[in-house]
Amino acid sequence: MRVRKKKWAVPYMEEHSEYAVNEPENYRGKWSSRFKKSAPIHVEIGSGKGQFIVGMAKKHPEINYIGIDIQDSVLAMAVKKAVDEGLDNLQLVLTDGADVDTLFDKGEIQKLYLNFSDPWPKSRHEKRRLTYKTFLNSYQNILPNNAELEFKTDNRGLFEYSLVSLNNFGMDFELVNLDLHHSSEEVIADNVPTEYEEKFKEKGPIYKIVARFNETSRKEN
Amino acid sequence: MRVRKKKWAVPYMEEHSEYAVNEPENYRGKWSSRFKKSAPIHVEIGSGKGQFIVGMAKKHPEINYIGIDIQDSVLAMAVKKAVDEGLDNLQLVLTDGADVDTLFDKGEIQKLYLNFSDPWPKSRHEKRRLTYKTFLNSYQNILPNNAELEFKTDNRGLFEYSLVSLNNFGMDFELVNLDLHHSSEEVIADNVPTEYEEKFKEKGPIYKIVARFNETSRKEN
Repeated sequence: MRVRKKKWAVPYMEEHSEYAVNEPENYRGKWSSRFKKSAPIHVEIGSGKGQFIVGMAKKHPEINYIGIDIQDSVLAMAVKKAVDEGLDNLQLVLTDGADVDTLFDKGEIQKLYLNFSDPWPKSRHEKRRLTYKTFLNSYQNILPNNAELEFKTDNRGLFEYSLVSLNNFGMDFELVNLDLHHSSEEVIADNVPTEYEEKFKEKGPIYKIVARFNETSRKEN
Repeated sequence: MRVRKKKWAVPYMEEHSEYAVNEPENYRGKWSSRFKKSAPIHVEIGSGKGQFIVGMAKKHPEINYIGIDIQDSVLAMAVKKAVDEGLDNLQLVLTDGADVDTLFDKGEIQKLYLNFSDPWPKSRHEKRRLTYKTFLNSYQNILPNNAELEFKTDNRGLFEYSLVSLNNFGMDFELVNLDLHHSSEEVIADNVPTEYEEKFKEKGPIYKIVARFNETSRKEN
């Protein structure tokens, strides 16, 4: 999602370096030092304005969260939410999610979320989709064996593609939901929606998959 | 689908044993003898009134088809369609699709279709779903390596379940379509709908998957 430039964004993040991580590459292997409590670290790529990752951080104080986004104008709003809530289990990183495997050591993070990633619908842009095999490979490089990837999207083409791509990569599917907002009360109550999801959930199905990496993943890649 | 008993069904099929196979267990390893021309054999489990399998036989004269159903009242109507069309590449078998692996030798058939199988929505009936692992195992027992299974359904729960089940069995996904009747003109033109599909295609999405068995399938089953 393109967002109008916000002049205050970069200065605001610099001012709040307790949440917005400066020079994140320096924390590789040391991310636990950014958090008050020692806990598993879960990462979201493409956090946008932060509704999901802030919601998760509030809901799960036993987990430490890192939200990544490439756009300062939106990530600054996530930082503002973290500041307002005074959360001690959330860090936000302005960088390209595509480079996630340079940010973390193998096993340093325990789970990865992709929410409403850019669908890149044209075939010639397949390699840019965050569920393309080279990205899956990057995720596997930083996650422990059997770690989960959770992915939500409203984009049918991207979800169809991703089901095939994750399967062909050798991942084990845990759960597929083809209409998240028309599910059991328990599933709906458990879901933390993104801003985008709130806006588009009435326009068509929101799709979700939870899948695990395993030792034999990547067998033919 | 339950259908009213038709008195003419069994006598009609006995009369037309050139299409409706008597004592099908006798043809194990010899199914090619039932066809005029030698060709790959594709099988549909749950042919019902036969619109799909008759449509496929007309569209693909280069393939021999076998349609299986457990209900005489509906299968007789499929036989009638075959008689009326004078098709020489279609055979119909009144038996339980669950026993498919006793009907064929390994490699005797090249492809399998499941269309709008009974969803068996209750968890305690999981083992009856035709995409449960014991059935996948039966299919693999009769199909050659890398053979395709094609599965269509309008039942969201069954499709969600089947995506996980096929993946966990180690099958390779070729294609997933989450709304078959809202697809490219080419895809729609290529689709041969079942009677049920014609009736329900406007009420919600028809889901489709094409997946392959491979040597490593069943690795943990």
